[in-house]
Amino acid sequence: MVSSFHEFDLIQWIRNQCPDSHTNLVGIGDDTAILQPPRGNELLLATDMLMEGTHFTFPPATPELAGRKALAVNLSDIAAMAGVPHSALISLALPKTRGPEFAKSVMQGVIELAEEFQIQIIGGDTNSWDGPLVINVAIIGVAQSSRSIQRSGARPGDWIFVTGELGGSFDSHHLTFTPRVKEAAILRETVTIKSMIDISDGLTSDLHHILKESQVGALVNAKAIPISQRVSLDESPAVRLQRALNDGEDFELLFTVSPEEGQLLLDQNPLNDKLTHIGEIREEQGAYLQDTNGSLTPLESTGWKHQF
Amino acid sequence: MVSSFHEFDLIQWIRNQCPDSHTNLVGIGDDTAILQPPRGNELLLATDMLMEGTHFTFPPATPELAGRKALAVNLSDIAAMAGVPHSALISLALPKTRGPEFAKSVMQGVIELAEEFQIQIIGGDTNSWDGPLVINVAIIGVAQSSRSIQRSGARPGDWIFVTGELGGSFDSHHLTFTPRVKEAAILRETVTIKSMIDISDGLTSDLHHILKESQVGALVNAKAIPISQRVSLDESPAVRLQRALNDGEDFELLFTVSPEEGQLLLDQNPLNDKLTHIGEIREEQGAYLQDTNGSLTPLESTGWKHQF
Repeated sequence: MVSSFHEFDLIQWIRNQCPDSHTNLVGIGDDTAILQPPRGNELLLATDMLMEGTHFTFPPATPELAGRKALAVNLSDIAAMAGVPHSALISLALPKTRGPEFAKSVMQGVIELAEEFQIQIIGGDTNSWDGPLVINVAIIGVAQSSRSIQRSGARPGDWIFVTGELGGSFDSHHLTFTPRVKEAAILRETVTIKSMIDISDGLTSDLHHILKESQVGALVNAKAIPISQRVSLDESPAVRLQRALNDGEDFELLFTVSPEEGQLLLDQNPLNDKLTHIGEIREEQGAYLQDTNGSLTPLESTGWKHQF
Repeated sequence: MVSSFHEFDLIQWIRNQCPDSHTNLVGIGDDTAILQPPRGNELLLATDMLMEGTHFTFPPATPELAGRKALAVNLSDIAAMAGVPHSALISLALPKTRGPEFAKSVMQGVIELAEEFQIQIIGGDTNSWDGPLVINVAIIGVAQSSRSIQRSGARPGDWIFVTGELGGSFDSHHLTFTPRVKEAAILRETVTIKSMIDISDGLTSDLHHILKESQVGALVNAKAIPISQRVSLDESPAVRLQRALNDGEDFELLFTVSPEEGQLLLDQNPLNDKLTHIGEIREEQGAYLQDTNGSLTPLESTGWKHQF
């Protein structure tokens, strides 16, 4: 099967753009990359596949933004474990009709974000076909041994926090968001994070992931939810709240800490106000939204993203 | 975006099929998998994306065979480094029309081969869309430090060997081949492999990868090429040879050793005749096919697979 453009040239171009920069690594140019794992660390491994028409469309996405998003969602997974991103493998199914400049633009979006987060592209696979663009990223991160933050560590009494603001990600935020790697590192150095997840499905759905893995429940204060300015003020308050809870693709961090350390976060304000205390973990199963008048409504999951 | 079937059920099914079996690993169920790298080893990392209509079609492929192939081509990359496969991440773009049983069948094909090679599925990403099936696998292998076999180690005088037989992979071999992981381990224990690659593009093209990375040339003995019984005897001898050289997707191992160790391999026959001495590495650049009458023809690369 001969492709419509010279993919070996594309690979050579990618290889030139992605020289070996980490000393413990052999990157592009063999059957596999070779990594000498840093001592005293554990490795974090995740993957995400993004498809044109599902996770992005042209426009408003550009090829660069599609490539950027594919890496960014993976960086967000590393942030959710409070890890340091290290390297990534990139697979592409490229639409034949769009040619090599399109392919380079996609990779340019990947490479620029990789440079920003100081990670190395260590390998991948390029293909062309008659279908739309598909990008898969597999990411490797490192964490100090036993310092990875899992979803299963939430305990009754924990305070629930969220970084940034939520809702209205569909227009452009889901293409341009900054993965919260730096914020996760600051939090990890400030407190003992008991459990954490990144908000991809939506606050409600991702909170349920923590509750399920930790076998606990939660009470969320409706008034405290930080609704993004991206959500139009023309909407009703109820709709605006729902959008913050369920739009998804916010890629903010949702985490729990002990009440004492929660108070410490409020006092020290290490993220410059980009941190909100939104509720508490309870022993009683189930998640409830508490209204200003004290009434409780079940928080029901409507998320759509499906990682395993 | 609500999918046409319950993907969370699919993920739970996958999770049940893929329990944590390695003691140094936390697999499915969090934002990333967590791996405690084994001491004294280096990690091997690779990825391959397979698309319906390009790398397989239904029929002759079944969903199980498509899933199997996606993992098998990655196992072959680990074999090419003389490594031991350890774990894998699986991403799926599933055609909405085909429903959850199709998805389970694809994963069943992945999981059965994973069990055969004692590797653990540690995570992934499931999506559904209106397009055809896309499967991406990212694989993790281990090798004793500095024992990974790269493409760049071929030296003038080395003998060139190939495992198994070549050509005619298109009908079913490319779906059912056994990755040469065991054979690579036997070779690694028997001799010092100087350079190695798995034959995915085709012997000619993959030999060129070794020559380029090692900055050497090669002379290949046309008569020695082991042409598979899969290539019809109705074809002319010239066409049969071309098919063995360029069909690709054989997923055999192509490697070089010193002449002394080459003789040792012929004497000891550790792969029970599934090993053929096909030529020599030369200092002079370029690859040539030597005919029975001694004439030389340039070996030109026509391969089509595009890893980086």
